Amino acid sequence: MNHSILDQIDLQEEQYIRTKICSMCRNFYRLGWVSGTGGGISIRRNQVVFMAPSGVQKEKIRPKDIFILDLEGNILKYPENQALKLTECAPLFFSAYELRDAGAVIHSHSSNVVLLTFLTNKKHPKFDFIYEYHFTRLEMLKGIQGHGYLDTFVLPIIENTPKECDLTESLRIAIQEYPKSPAVAVKDHGIYVWGKNEDHAKTQAECIDYICEIEIKKRMMGIRY
Amino acid sequence: MNHSILDQIDLQEEQYIRTKICSMCRNFYRLGWVSGTGGGISIRRNQVVFMAPSGVQKEKIRPKDIFILDLEGNILKYPENQALKLTECAPLFFSAYELRDAGAVIHSHSSNVVLLTFLTNKKHPKFDFIYEYHFTRLEMLKGIQGHGYLDTFVLPIIENTPKECDLTESLRIAIQEYPKSPAVAVKDHGIYVWGKNEDHAKTQAECIDYICEIEIKKRMMGIRY
Amino acid sequence: MNHSILDQIDLQEEQYIRTKICSMCRNFYRLGWVSGTGGGISIRRNQVVFMAPSGVQKEKIRPKDIFILDLEGNILKYPENQALKLTECAPLFFSAYELRDAGAVIHSHSSNVVLLTFLTNKKHPKFDFIYEYHFTRLEMLKGIQGHGYLDTFVLPIIENTPKECDLTESLRIAIQEYPKSPAVAVKDHGIYVWGKNEDHAKTQAECIDYICEIEIKKRMMGIRY
Amino acid sequence: MNHSILDQIDLQEEQYIRTKICSMCRNFYRLGWVSGTGGGISIRRNQVVFMAPSGVQKEKIRPKDIFILDLEGNILKYPENQALKLTECAPLFFSAYELRDAGAVIHSHSSNVVLLTFLTNKKHPKFDFIYEYHFTRLEMLKGIQGHGYLDTFVLPIIENTPKECDLTESLRIAIQEYPKSPAVAVKDHGIYVWGKNEDHAKTQAECIDYICEIEIKKRMMGIRY
Repeated sequence: MNHSILDQIDLQEEQYIRTKICSMCRNFYRLGWVSGTGGGISIRRNQVVFMAPSGVQKEKIRPKDIFILDLEGNILKYPENQALKLTECAPLFFSAYELRDAGAVIHSHSSNVVLLTFLTNKKHPKFDFIYEYHFTRLEMLKGIQGHGYLDTFVLPIIENTPKECDLTESLRIAIQEYPKSPAVAVKDHGIYVWGKNEDHAKTQAECIDYICEIEIKKRMMGIRY
Repeated sequence: MNHSILDQIDLQEEQYIRTKICSMCRNFYRLGWVSGTGGGISIRRNQVVFMAPSGVQKEKIRPKDIFILDLEGNILKYPENQALKLTECAPLFFSAYELRDAGAVIHSHSSNVVLLTFLTNKKHPKFDFIYEYHFTRLEMLKGIQGHGYLDTFVLPIIENTPKECDLTESLRIAIQEYPKSPAVAVKDHGIYVWGKNEDHAKTQAECIDYICEIEIKKRMMGIRY
Repeated sequence: MNHSILDQIDLQEEQYIRTKICSMCRNFYRLGWVSGTGGGISIRRNQVVFMAPSGVQKEKIRPKDIFILDLEGNILKYPENQALKLTECAPLFFSAYELRDAGAVIHSHSSNVVLLTFLTNKKHPKFDFIYEYHFTRLEMLKGIQGHGYLDTFVLPIIENTPKECDLTESLRIAIQEYPKSPAVAVKDHGIYVWGKNEDHAKTQAECIDYICEIEIKKRMMGIRY
Repeated sequence: MNHSILDQIDLQEEQYIRTKICSMCRNFYRLGWVSGTGGGISIRRNQVVFMAPSGVQKEKIRPKDIFILDLEGNILKYPENQALKLTECAPLFFSAYELRDAGAVIHSHSSNVVLLTFLTNKKHPKFDFIYEYHFTRLEMLKGIQGHGYLDTFVLPIIENTPKECDLTESLRIAIQEYPKSPAVAVKDHGIYVWGKNEDHAKTQAECIDYICEIEIKKRMMGIRY
């Protein structure tokens, strides 16, 4: 166990983050973002990374069920329940930590986002596994870091893969190709959204979910402009 | 009363399951799966089967309202309130216990599933009372036991009958004809979903509900591929 | 104050019903049935009638805010807060008590029902202010008293009027013309649903709301059969 | 600090309003009106104005996070947390206080309202930045102050601007041009709704949200009349 890194957070802060992950997961369940056992969340403080376990009902997670890792992905503390497994998403979470200095990453299976991934018809000029959806003229764009009402927010959407860990390379490319986006969507799958901390990641995720909802409902209403 | 079978679970476990059924039903009500007095749930431990009562508001069920049966369908313990009735679904629940060694079965009236049953246009080659819906290229398929992203999940959909118990034979045939599906949907009606235990059954039910929601909203958006 | 009638229920029962109205209204608010200050509920025990007040947020009602009346509509007990007003719906509630011996009546503004009232294209052969919607082949029809899966449930829909009390006559005619329906919908407005007691009225209301939701979503999906 | 104005409300009333803003924001979050960090609420008592802070998750606001201002917009009491900022909406809230003698103003980002702003095709005869949507023949119109079932409720919809404070002038014109409307919607953005007090503002907001939901779902169903 790497004590020098764990010393970066005191016990009270550790307990706060463990509890926060649980309450955020309950909220994500209510929002329909983590149905089944899908989705997840990871929070980083300095070089210490907290991660919800995989393959379990996210709304039932307890503070003692959380993994703690260093930034190389080494597990510093295991959950009390040894049957719990680290998520396959771990390398995806770490990509946002490394490439964007994120403080938290949310992985959502929101149906609003998945339905939006069916609408895109633009492609990255070079990488044929990256699609785009262009949002503009929505007040909620102001909630997405670095964007204003009249700006175009380009959400990159990468092809899904049978194994979640195989998304890593294309996700890293999308992160680097779209430096203004705090998120990468995955076709037929969901979205990875990050922020400077867990509250920021959550508001970014809500704003993106909202604009996806607007676009899919516009389509339901027959509005095409 | 058959004590030798009831001895398979201690009082604490019995109370846990009674309480679990109640909290699951409250969640199902919130999800819109058990509106009116419809839907239900049954949990099995070894040869002891717990079943929610019939014809009552599922979100109001109390631990003392549960029936306990053996695998032959004999009632071992009645609810305290003698007006409560065993559900007509009982033989349907037992089919999944017998033919799939299920540990729990959920019966949902989810509107997402019922609307999906209107979309199917494939039929079983031999049995004309069995329809199919083919799902593919959805990450959430990974949540359905034995399926991956690129697999096709074939959900069998049987014709509904005026009496719920008359579904038993066609449900049993569908269970046997579709060994890869953890669920059988019923046209105009809902779905029976099972799993190795109650948590597994619930996550199977949520994943199937989610993919049905995606398909019906795609239809609302005019997406036909 | 008419003590001989109030004696029909003891204080504990009175308090139970007052509290029940409040908890039901909170649930109706969550379901979207009583947005703004619309909708309401009345419960009857023998000749004593309880009624939620008018023009207030229904999810905020407290047990002491309830009116108690006799079957002639005379107020036996006023709410503690003298600013509260009896609902204009009172004569409508009394119609179901008188003509159907109902034990409770729910008035909902559910958007599912209002949208359904736009779909109807059948008219009563004699009364030109009564429209109909015919439901069939839905399992949830079993939840509506006296109906089975293959039956046709005919929901009468009356024209709305500028003043709610002016609905009384057409509602009474619809109640009498459609003895198999536990509800009368009102175009552009909502629905009155009754049952033999408050739990029965609530399950009738949920079943009807559910089948309306199915029909309007079928329409959104472009399904016309 | 301007004590003469703060003396208009006692400490108990101040604490009541602080707490009320928090509970209303939690409800608005549940309704989807304040996703991300958008939306807000302000309550006025005499010349004292309470305002939720800007750029934070509205469902997490605590009583001590509220700003208190006088009617000229001078801050009388800051939140305990000095990092919190006054909302850019402040001049918009004050417009309703000044021009309509409102007791509370709600700013919602409801997707129902935003989608409705895409449907409008009428324009103000003189001001080309003001659109209109005409609602009629809906019972819920009775919930909007001064309107009946057969009346036409004209909701003014102004063009959005990159900076929220730049909405002030067009909002003030719309307020004055449409004296019968208790709300002004903003295209691609949301709505400002007021009432004589916070409960009245909330019921006005719910009624308008409901009629917008009806109109957009009618469109989804292909109903154009």
